[in-house]
Amino acid sequence: MSATPVYGLSDWGTSRFRLWLVDADGKVLAERRSDDGLDASRTKGFAQTLEGHLADLGAPADMPVIVCGMAGSRQGWVEANYVAVPADLSAILSGCVKIEGVRRDVRIIPGLSQSGLSPNVMRGEETQLLGAMLDRNLSSGIIAMPGTHSKWVELEEGRATSFSTYLTGELYALLASQSILRHSIQDAAVMASADHPQFTDALELMLSGKQMLGELFGIRAAMLLDNLPPEGAASRLSGLLIGAELAGAKARHDGKVTLVASGAMAALYGKALSVANIQYDVVDADEAVRKGLFVAASGIWPNHQGRSA
Amino acid sequence: MSATPVYGLSDWGTSRFRLWLVDADGKVLAERRSDDGLDASRTKGFAQTLEGHLADLGAPADMPVIVCGMAGSRQGWVEANYVAVPADLSAILSGCVKIEGVRRDVRIIPGLSQSGLSPNVMRGEETQLLGAMLDRNLSSGIIAMPGTHSKWVELEEGRATSFSTYLTGELYALLASQSILRHSIQDAAVMASADHPQFTDALELMLSGKQMLGELFGIRAAMLLDNLPPEGAASRLSGLLIGAELAGAKARHDGKVTLVASGAMAALYGKALSVANIQYDVVDADEAVRKGLFVAASGIWPNHQGRSA
Repeated sequence: MSATPVYGLSDWGTSRFRLWLVDADGKVLAERRSDDGLDASRTKGFAQTLEGHLADLGAPADMPVIVCGMAGSRQGWVEANYVAVPADLSAILSGCVKIEGVRRDVRIIPGLSQSGLSPNVMRGEETQLLGAMLDRNLSSGIIAMPGTHSKWVELEEGRATSFSTYLTGELYALLASQSILRHSIQDAAVMASADHPQFTDALELMLSGKQMLGELFGIRAAMLLDNLPPEGAASRLSGLLIGAELAGAKARHDGKVTLVASGAMAALYGKALSVANIQYDVVDADEAVRKGLFVAASGIWPNHQGRSA
Repeated sequence: MSATPVYGLSDWGTSRFRLWLVDADGKVLAERRSDDGLDASRTKGFAQTLEGHLADLGAPADMPVIVCGMAGSRQGWVEANYVAVPADLSAILSGCVKIEGVRRDVRIIPGLSQSGLSPNVMRGEETQLLGAMLDRNLSSGIIAMPGTHSKWVELEEGRATSFSTYLTGELYALLASQSILRHSIQDAAVMASADHPQFTDALELMLSGKQMLGELFGIRAAMLLDNLPPEGAASRLSGLLIGAELAGAKARHDGKVTLVASGAMAALYGKALSVANIQYDVVDADEAVRKGLFVAASGIWPNHQGRSA
C-alpha cells in the first residue's frame, strides 16, 4: 500500500465479512474477503476478528472503521436499533452506534424497519441503497437488491417509504441442496444460466400467475420422464424462484427499476426483468455498498478527509 | 394373533415403512411401523428388511405381500414402471411387478406418470387414491392427498385424468428447521395449529393472490418487531404454504374435494378448505392406503381369500 488509508469500510453479514481500506476520495487501497461472518465472529470475538483483518492489511491504529450488516443485529457485536420507514437516508447515518471499550473508533450503521401489516427489516441493504441512490442521483423510484433475502424498496423524494423481502436466494440454496430436487441438480457447482430456455420458460410461467409451490416438483418429474439435465434443472429452479419474486414485485411496484447486483446475479435478474417487460438500470452491488459506507464514514469523520472541517 | 393372516400389505416410502397383516376380509391382525424407508433398506437389503419385519409379526412363510411406494422406484427394490394418465385404476393393478429370486410372492404396485407440458409422477398415492375411491364409491371429482409432496388428482368416470404436486410438506420442514425462520419457530416440536389466528390470516393472504415468496420473511420480521411467538410463527408458515397450495389448486380444479388425510394434517387442511370456501369430505389416509393395498392383493391372489376362484 503506497498511500495511507483514512477509513476502513466493512460489510459484515451473516456468512461473509468484507473489508476495504480507502483513501480520502474513497479509492480502494486494500481489500479483504473472508468467511468471518456473524456466526464465526461470535465465537472468535468481533473486536479480535476485525483487528486481525486490519492488521493483515497493515491498517493504521487510529484509522476509524464504519460497519454495516448483521454485525449490528441483536446477535451481533452491538445492536444498532432500526430506523423506521418512511426514513430519510440521512437518519440512518445519524443513527450510527459507536462501539464502546475498543481503542479504535468503530461505528455500526443501523438497519431499516417497517411496522404494521407488513412487518419487515433490513440490515446492510440500507447502505447499498444509499450508495445506489448517490451513484445514480436517485431520489424516487424502485430499487431491487437481489440476494439471499432480496429487498425491493420504494423511494419517494429521497425517503425510503416501504420495502419488501423475498426469500429467493435462501430458498434456491435449500431446494437445490437439501430437497428432492437435489437429485435433479446433482452438484452444487451446477449453476443456473440466464440463457437457458428452461430459465425463460419458468419465468414466463410464473409471470402468467402460476403458484411456484405447484411447479417445483415438475423439475423432478422432468428428470425422471424426459431426462432433464442438471443445468436445465438449476436454470428452471432459478426461473421459478426469480419469476415468483418478479410476479410479486410487479403487483407492488410500477415503473423503472434500479437493479443493484453483480456478476451472475446481475445477468439472471437482468434477463428476468427484460422478460417481465420492466425497464431497468444496473448498479454494481459491491460498488454500491462501498459508496454507501464511504459516504457514512466521511459524514461522521470529515476531518479524516484531509479537508478543513 | 389368533387368526391366520392371508395378506401382507406394505406402504414403503422414502423415509417410512409400514406393514399390516390382514385376514381375508381386510381386517388388521398385526401392524408394524418403522424408519426402514428406502434409504435405510438400500443398505440393509430390501428382502432382509421385509422378512425381518414379517418374522417379528409371526407371518406365515407362504403369505403373499403387496407393496406400494418408493420401493418400486429406480432407487428401490425393483422398478415398477409408471402407468401413464389418463389411467383406469385397474390398469395400475395389472401393472404390478413380481419380485424375482425370493421365496415369498411379493408384488409392487406401479406409480402414475403424466407426460407433456406438466410432467408429474406419483408412487404410493395411486394406492391411497384407489382406496379413497372405493371407500366413497367415487368415480369423478377431485382428490387431495396432502403430505411431503401433496397430490391433487382429477378423476373422470373412474379414470385419473391429470394430477399436480405441491412441495408443501417438504418446504415446511426445510423452512422451519434450516432457514432464517428456524429462529422464529425455535423448536421442531412446535406445531402449527389450525385454530391459531396466524394460520387463518396467512391462508386469507395467500387466497387473495399474494406471492408466498414475498411473505415468508415477514415471520422473521414479526418476531423481531412484534415478538411473534413460536406457535404463531409455525402456524403462520403453515398457513402461507397450505394457502399457496390451495390458491394453486383452486386455479386448476373446481368443485367438491375428497381430502385424504389423518390427524393434524386433516385438521389443518380441513380448516384451510373451509376458509377457501371449498366443500370437502375426509377419508382417513391410513385406511385409504390399506384399503387400496387390500383390493390389489385380493385381485392378484383371490384364492387366498378362502373363496373358490
